[in-house]
Amino acid sequence: MRKSEFVLPEGMIYLDGNSLGPLPKAASARLQKTVQDEWGQLLIKGWNDAGWMHQPTAIGERIGRLIGAPAGTVMVGDTLSIKIYQALAAALAMRPDRRIIVSDTGNFPTDLYMAEGLINSLDKGHELKVVPAESVTDAIDESVAVLLLTQVDYRTGRLHDMQALTEKAQAAGAVVIWDLAHSAGALPIDLQGCKPEFAAGCTYKYLNAGPGAPAFIYVRPDIVDTIEPALSGWLGHTAPFDFSLHYQPGKAIERMRVGTPSVLQMSVLEAALDIWDDVSIDEVRDQSIELSELFIQLVESRCSELTLISPRDPQQRGSQVSFAFDEGYAAIQALITDGVVGDFRAPNVMRFGFTPLYLDKDDVRLAADKLVNVMQNKLWAEERFSVRKAVT
Amino acid sequence: MRKSEFVLPEGMIYLDGNSLGPLPKAASARLQKTVQDEWGQLLIKGWNDAGWMHQPTAIGERIGRLIGAPAGTVMVGDTLSIKIYQALAAALAMRPDRRIIVSDTGNFPTDLYMAEGLINSLDKGHELKVVPAESVTDAIDESVAVLLLTQVDYRTGRLHDMQALTEKAQAAGAVVIWDLAHSAGALPIDLQGCKPEFAAGCTYKYLNAGPGAPAFIYVRPDIVDTIEPALSGWLGHTAPFDFSLHYQPGKAIERMRVGTPSVLQMSVLEAALDIWDDVSIDEVRDQSIELSELFIQLVESRCSELTLISPRDPQQRGSQVSFAFDEGYAAIQALITDGVVGDFRAPNVMRFGFTPLYLDKDDVRLAADKLVNVMQNKLWAEERFSVRKAVT
Repeated sequence: MRKSEFVLPEGMIYLDGNSLGPLPKAASARLQKTVQDEWGQLLIKGWNDAGWMHQPTAIGERIGRLIGAPAGTVMVGDTLSIKIYQALAAALAMRPDRRIIVSDTGNFPTDLYMAEGLINSLDKGHELKVVPAESVTDAIDESVAVLLLTQVDYRTGRLHDMQALTEKAQAAGAVVIWDLAHSAGALPIDLQGCKPEFAAGCTYKYLNAGPGAPAFIYVRPDIVDTIEPALSGWLGHTAPFDFSLHYQPGKAIERMRVGTPSVLQMSVLEAALDIWDDVSIDEVRDQSIELSELFIQLVESRCSELTLISPRDPQQRGSQVSFAFDEGYAAIQALITDGVVGDFRAPNVMRFGFTPLYLDKDDVRLAADKLVNVMQNKLWAEERFSVRKAVT
Repeated sequence: MRKSEFVLPEGMIYLDGNSLGPLPKAASARLQKTVQDEWGQLLIKGWNDAGWMHQPTAIGERIGRLIGAPAGTVMVGDTLSIKIYQALAAALAMRPDRRIIVSDTGNFPTDLYMAEGLINSLDKGHELKVVPAESVTDAIDESVAVLLLTQVDYRTGRLHDMQALTEKAQAAGAVVIWDLAHSAGALPIDLQGCKPEFAAGCTYKYLNAGPGAPAFIYVRPDIVDTIEPALSGWLGHTAPFDFSLHYQPGKAIERMRVGTPSVLQMSVLEAALDIWDDVSIDEVRDQSIELSELFIQLVESRCSELTLISPRDPQQRGSQVSFAFDEGYAAIQALITDGVVGDFRAPNVMRFGFTPLYLDKDDVRLAADKLVNVMQNKLWAEERFSVRKAVT
């Protein structure tokens, strides 16, 4: 759809945009402008004259349009871990008489870790109940303070039914937080229709804003003014430049700002979002399903050693396909050496992301052929592929 | 000292490096390498092959050398607000039977706000006692859990005696946190000798790492292994890529990492720190005092309307000089228009930072002449200078 707008290394088929999206060609020039013309020439005046101070709000508006959020409900900044903490601290404060947080084993671990840290810090007897994804609905009852879930399982791509789980949790009086890390830019999201209290996500996966790109947080507009932020940083103050001694939360979503925004990363994010201006997320979703289905068909028909662990129904799946294989780590290394970049998640998951912005059917056919070659010729058995690195 | 290594706009004398340092010339090339060669060509492999994953630790070592911290005690990431929150949450947990946090009215507001947010969130009856700087020592008694101070007052430049206050607080059984925002890169700091439990700081002021550059946190090595981080993100886990369901804190300072580091900002920070490799911080301090004394002398002798509110003794002062003047906002605008960039802090403070890395005596003489011109000719009275912008 927009392949010409990305830097894609010669000879590489990149099926790891679910982990880190590729470089948008416009990003370098945008970054040089921010560095040379703004920081270099305006220096401190950049906060006003180049609009740095307003970036987190303005970019929040643009991300909001991709996830079905109304104007004025999304703020950009920090990391997803921090944004989850902000949401969870606020959610627990909304249900002071309840002590249970429900999540699932398919949630990305940092969400669980941040919940553990918050529970430990509060020391009020909260409990994090982590159940299998299929048991979440049964775990929801009137003891639950917060339902904290990631829509798309980072290993299998399994999709939760956001609407049904949100309704069930809210009917039981729980507050709902959705982590959209593997959703934003991958499939249509309708926060306004779904009505969770909170959502958060990152921008370095399907939004292609680069390593260390900032996160975002959504707060439902009818509750935002009741929130007293746990992370009450000066840029979330109603009048930061009054330098008063007491915190007064800023208007609506502005209170979810914390410290000084990462201006250089924000500028790259702006360039990355420009690509989305004329892209239909419905079309992205349709093509992602086509590409994923094609890959599954081409691989399964020729590689009986690989077991599909993603849901077979594409409507139940995010924008990735995963296979289980005991020698999956070595197989991914062999495949990367042959120019197809997927990734591996312990203990045995081979993951492949499908991102129609810069992938087409020819890429998918070639990637499938190369994976079949690795499997049929047992290239994974070569010793050089089994040495593990810290990150894959 | 290193003027040729910075981009300094033609005709501008920049006395605001205490707010945002100028662009190091090497930063653009370093950033292009990170963007084009690393993100663009390595994509996900950048985390290993370009060392992105290790950057926060490696850069922490380099910052540690500038603040007298031993190896393995400094971690880079997030914003200073977040790092203060991490330190304060850990400090309060170390003194579960005490309820008082002492700080002063000269602390930068975000430190106070983060403390308020944490206190509010914990809901255990903690109290933030904010006293005038000169009363801090009297406010320390055996009820105090934490002493939270910024060494250099952001408005006046007044220096706290880190050693004496740390000793007094620790003798009373309190935990000590120093905010080094206006200290790191401005004057010699000896954390190893001073022995506070925690310190934190930012890198966009005297370390010149650009708008939104990451913060740092120091934890004294004898206590770090006892800390259960409140912000327990996945990259602070002992084995993040095991994706286990429970948080286990990483080794020593590694546990103070939270989420995905801002790789682009980190790269700029690396380039900015290169400048410090052959610079003596003692020499920086000596020259900063020379420049500041010269400025005070040249201004005071000719502008009786300006009242020095920085300590007159340079040993009691950070690397800035501040004057009070009721029309200070307009005077600073008039001065900026004439090419000298200082800044204004409400209600009436005109601030000037002295940074010998890229300022010399000729700059200071010319800046003083221009300030004298603004004052003697009452240029501040022109209407165009009194219209306030959001940030100055």
